[in-house]
Amino acid sequence: MKKGHRPSKSKGGLPRFWGKHAVYAALDNPARNVRKLWATREAAAEIVLPDGLTISYAEAADLGRMVPKDTPHQGLVIEIDPLEDMWLADLLHEAEDNPNRPLIVLDQVTDPHNVGAIFRSAAAFNAIGVVTQDRHAPPESGTVAKSASGALESVPWIRVVNLSRALEEIAEAGFWRIGLSGHADSNLAEAIGSAKVAIVMGAEGEGLRQNVEAHCDLIAKLPISAQMESLNVSNAAAIAMYAIATRGE
Amino acid sequence: MKKGHRPSKSKGGLPRFWGKHAVYAALDNPARNVRKLWATREAAAEIVLPDGLTISYAEAADLGRMVPKDTPHQGLVIEIDPLEDMWLADLLHEAEDNPNRPLIVLDQVTDPHNVGAIFRSAAAFNAIGVVTQDRHAPPESGTVAKSASGALESVPWIRVVNLSRALEEIAEAGFWRIGLSGHADSNLAEAIGSAKVAIVMGAEGEGLRQNVEAHCDLIAKLPISAQMESLNVSNAAAIAMYAIATRGE
Repeated sequence: MKKGHRPSKSKGGLPRFWGKHAVYAALDNPARNVRKLWATREAAAEIVLPDGLTISYAEAADLGRMVPKDTPHQGLVIEIDPLEDMWLADLLHEAEDNPNRPLIVLDQVTDPHNVGAIFRSAAAFNAIGVVTQDRHAPPESGTVAKSASGALESVPWIRVVNLSRALEEIAEAGFWRIGLSGHADSNLAEAIGSAKVAIVMGAEGEGLRQNVEAHCDLIAKLPISAQMESLNVSNAAAIAMYAIATRGE
Repeated sequence: MKKGHRPSKSKGGLPRFWGKHAVYAALDNPARNVRKLWATREAAAEIVLPDGLTISYAEAADLGRMVPKDTPHQGLVIEIDPLEDMWLADLLHEAEDNPNRPLIVLDQVTDPHNVGAIFRSAAAFNAIGVVTQDRHAPPESGTVAKSASGALESVPWIRVVNLSRALEEIAEAGFWRIGLSGHADSNLAEAIGSAKVAIVMGAEGEGLRQNVEAHCDLIAKLPISAQMESLNVSNAAAIAMYAIATRGE
């Protein structure tokens, strides 16, 4: 391994997760295949080990070289298989008719910290799942998993080839598709209504692409001051999920 | 400069900011002393230069070595003086009687990305200011400024020696002090009331320190699923500010 080049993937291309929340959640998830586990003696003492997995003991400094620089691994690193792909149709079919469970659709949100934080909020607000476009979203990685704080194991992540086509399917399943954009006329709170909601969010700076925006039922904004152009995308997502969870209160 | 060691401070100890939003906002702020400006020819063409400041032209790769690794500087780096300290008493005195403008109090929130994102939301929701404890908060840095997206120039940052004493002052100024904590009984929306609000938030993991929590009028939680222990602290702050801005609607 070259100095200064610290891959968060193994040579074989498998992602690595680190940190207590991400690792504990992965070990707890029967659908997650954990290939290898490295741990300090101290961190290992607190683990409930799944059948068939053994611990490779390591010093904290050695684990430090397996993860990106300055990342707090908390004595735990695992190498995992990505979760099996889930189909949007199956997710929509399985989703119970609970209008307070939002569906989150991300258009070209690529920052892994933001995507991870959105998963964390999605788990906290019991979202049905997160839909991204395959070519314009980060892969399941240690950075996403760390920011998601375990939520990658519980919130379905649906990768689609074509986001506009996915939005059509989402509408057919009875969702009201609200695109968030700073240049909308109505506020989110007014736009929510009482049906099931899919929140569609674009990347910071670029916002929603025109074709994606055209596939929303309504464009709404958050009630922010003219002083700021926008919120951080994970903060905006958290507010949207909160607004949906508390509507009508 | 050693390889692999890329300070975001100059040798003289002055902070550096980078990225369009942070740099434009600093150049626009009459209270901000900008010592030096480095820019690519392309980025320089879009700048309105304040009197007395000259541009040092540089290649993008050279700017890359002035900022932390993999940071998008967008062709702009400045070296600045920290803003002058502001006193809590002055801030509380100047604050108009607008109950929808929250005051944000951070107890040991140290991650610069989170602190920056909280400033960004604070500007977006027109917060009065952000109060931190001097010893337990990050310094004004390029990473904070980048995440704040310009908001460090508009939202007062008050550093106090003793947070409990500051909370007493805040109460005397007529604020209702709500501490956010996962183990509270009441939800934030019920706790807000109609008075001016100070939102008090602790670090992720540790939460509010006992003595700080004791200086709150009420402890409240966000309505999240038992599945997740907590939200990212900047996401929780954004939700709290949104809830205050939209109360009574």
